[in-house]
Amino acid sequence: MSTSASRLDRWLLHSLRKMLGSAPLDLVLYDREEVADMRRSVATIRFADRQTLIDVLRSPEMGFGDAFSEGRIVIDGDLVAALVAIYETRRNTPPGLLARWLLWTQQNTLTGSRKHVHHHYDLGNDFYNLWLDSEMQYTCAYFPNPDANLDTAQLAKLDHVCRKIWLRPGETVVEAGCGWGGLALHMARNYGVNVKAYNISQEQIAFARERAKREGLSNQVEFIEDDYRNIRGQFDAFISVGMLEHVGIERYRELGNVVRRAIGDTGRGLLHFIGRNFDRPLSTWIKRRVFPGGHPPALRSVMDIFEPQDYSVLDVENIRLHYARTLEHWLERFENSYDQVRDTYGANFARMWRLYLAGSAAAFRVGTLQLFQVVFAGSQCKTIPWNRAYLYEDAEPRQSDEPWIRAIS
Amino acid sequence: MSTSASRLDRWLLHSLRKMLGSAPLDLVLYDREEVADMRRSVATIRFADRQTLIDVLRSPEMGFGDAFSEGRIVIDGDLVAALVAIYETRRNTPPGLLARWLLWTQQNTLTGSRKHVHHHYDLGNDFYNLWLDSEMQYTCAYFPNPDANLDTAQLAKLDHVCRKIWLRPGETVVEAGCGWGGLALHMARNYGVNVKAYNISQEQIAFARERAKREGLSNQVEFIEDDYRNIRGQFDAFISVGMLEHVGIERYRELGNVVRRAIGDTGRGLLHFIGRNFDRPLSTWIKRRVFPGGHPPALRSVMDIFEPQDYSVLDVENIRLHYARTLEHWLERFENSYDQVRDTYGANFARMWRLYLAGSAAAFRVGTLQLFQVVFAGSQCKTIPWNRAYLYEDAEPRQSDEPWIRAIS
Repeated sequence: MSTSASRLDRWLLHSLRKMLGSAPLDLVLYDREEVADMRRSVATIRFADRQTLIDVLRSPEMGFGDAFSEGRIVIDGDLVAALVAIYETRRNTPPGLLARWLLWTQQNTLTGSRKHVHHHYDLGNDFYNLWLDSEMQYTCAYFPNPDANLDTAQLAKLDHVCRKIWLRPGETVVEAGCGWGGLALHMARNYGVNVKAYNISQEQIAFARERAKREGLSNQVEFIEDDYRNIRGQFDAFISVGMLEHVGIERYRELGNVVRRAIGDTGRGLLHFIGRNFDRPLSTWIKRRVFPGGHPPALRSVMDIFEPQDYSVLDVENIRLHYARTLEHWLERFENSYDQVRDTYGANFARMWRLYLAGSAAAFRVGTLQLFQVVFAGSQCKTIPWNRAYLYEDAEPRQSDEPWIRAIS
Repeated sequence: MSTSASRLDRWLLHSLRKMLGSAPLDLVLYDREEVADMRRSVATIRFADRQTLIDVLRSPEMGFGDAFSEGRIVIDGDLVAALVAIYETRRNTPPGLLARWLLWTQQNTLTGSRKHVHHHYDLGNDFYNLWLDSEMQYTCAYFPNPDANLDTAQLAKLDHVCRKIWLRPGETVVEAGCGWGGLALHMARNYGVNVKAYNISQEQIAFARERAKREGLSNQVEFIEDDYRNIRGQFDAFISVGMLEHVGIERYRELGNVVRRAIGDTGRGLLHFIGRNFDRPLSTWIKRRVFPGGHPPALRSVMDIFEPQDYSVLDVENIRLHYARTLEHWLERFENSYDQVRDTYGANFARMWRLYLAGSAAAFRVGTLQLFQVVFAGSQCKTIPWNRAYLYEDAEPRQSDEPWIRAIS
């Protein structure tokens, strides 16, 4: 195709420019014509052909995502910065009726959940091992300072959540959605608790069991390949890091009942999850291509878990900037293994994953996604920390009669 | 009345005992018969006559509250412990239909609000001065440790909320519901900010203005006798301590609009308020006799303020045990001035206030009331703290380029 840009092409590019408002981006119809040459542009978006322009205009999320994956859209410059600019412009666009309808009809039946998780997490441990930290934590890290490295920050996250629910030696903990088992093993190893950890990803459970065996922790940690809804037993604490966003808000009351069965009125717990300022569906592209069944909830929706149980919310921390930083680390590591990913999984997959990581980093930076850690306690939980200062003091060995625990009655 | 206890009296006492379940309380029909002599009783409740028993059975909250105020119910033993026992037993009783109806029909029109606040806060500065701390803080204190004294804890609260919204010298702050001006003056004096503070209580505003003048802070702090809905101007931060529970949940969207007009998308703010695990009306007695128009909201309802503005919740802290402690201090001080209160305001008022303070202490201890501090930020707020550690480090003089502030972009 060597014809010069037609009037139609110009009009299409102009429409796209309008959609992007004042975003500092150059738009180029490949090898033909530059429509805008803004002075402070952070990146140039190159469209391969007219059809790609039409695809993006007709369906901004799917059209853009798929065209990027297929190499029909190329972004020159800082990918994260370009996506930040796009999200900033688009953040105030309310979800359409169709999007709302999709949100409410999304079904997570027991079989459905299994399928959803397999899609994402059973890509193979080897794939995630390429770019995750040494603990295989596929959730937001907690950086003591913004320049800490990823391994340090993932370890700090594990301690941050353990300290938040003031684990004491000999206690029992149930974990819903345990990934590759990093947190469960950390709790057993460093806090002397007994853990029952659930996950429906066969490959992750196998990996976790192998680690427990190797570390001699099989007596303390039981990994169970099953759905969180099938949790059985009584525990002192409930913990879930990075599962809630897969549960679906219409299942939160049921989840509350599961938690209640597990820890009763005397226990306490923590939920760590990707959330929103208000409920709206995930990007259609993320939902269809990367995370089927995912929904990052607003805090309002999460109250469906606690209110019917008369549970008290003790602490909510929003660490979304930490997730932006985590994703930047993942993206950097991913880029370092890019050729290997492309050769193993194909060029489209590699580009898709690049967009997914960069887009998520941008969303957490802009604030269209949040990361909440919520600590809660049952109405009869008799010891709760007097304040949160102990979280920020140098760690001492945990004692059952620590002064920061204050009996209620 | 010198007749011995009738069969009817026994039956009434028995019914009351059933209502109280296993609460460790002795019930005595005055000078007649002891119905229960439980071994580990924390207090004895004495009823003056049969009518009082009937009143309590027919309307537990109003009947009990009014009879206590009128001296027809006397509690021997630890009043707070007795009320804790009663609340523990009653906490799982769901609100009736009438109570729900009352909740939703409670109207806070502009005139209505003014009337409500006058009822409670215009009792006279002298009255509150008898038992509040030296800063006249009529809200939950923050105790560095449970044994700190009240003055220390109220000062610590002021700093805790100021630090939570990372005030920097030269910034502007609007305060909704400023009481006697303690926080507004503290912010101006210690954080170098300019404050506009609103309150509809004439006597409190007069007191606050006088203090500002005496301290030479009138240039920095403007006290305005007006409703929060009439806030005008642009500010860096919004703060409200102890007002939300008077606003009424049906007005939260409107309050969100007020906040948005004041701080836009770039500001941040803090709400400190009495809340609940889930929405239910205040005790009818508290509502009718002490706090007309009051409603402590569930976190779910509070989201009505933030969600329509695309505001992010950054931090929620529940410090209900600190309010129990605060109320115990107030009660102790109140008891020390009891004779003076009784001589000035009458015996019924003095007993009513005693029950209100003790009952509130019990409610915060049991957990039927919560105390939430919520920090939030607009979608374009460009600096937010990297984590919360700075809140717990020794205070350094505030600088505008502090390392704990992390620019978003």
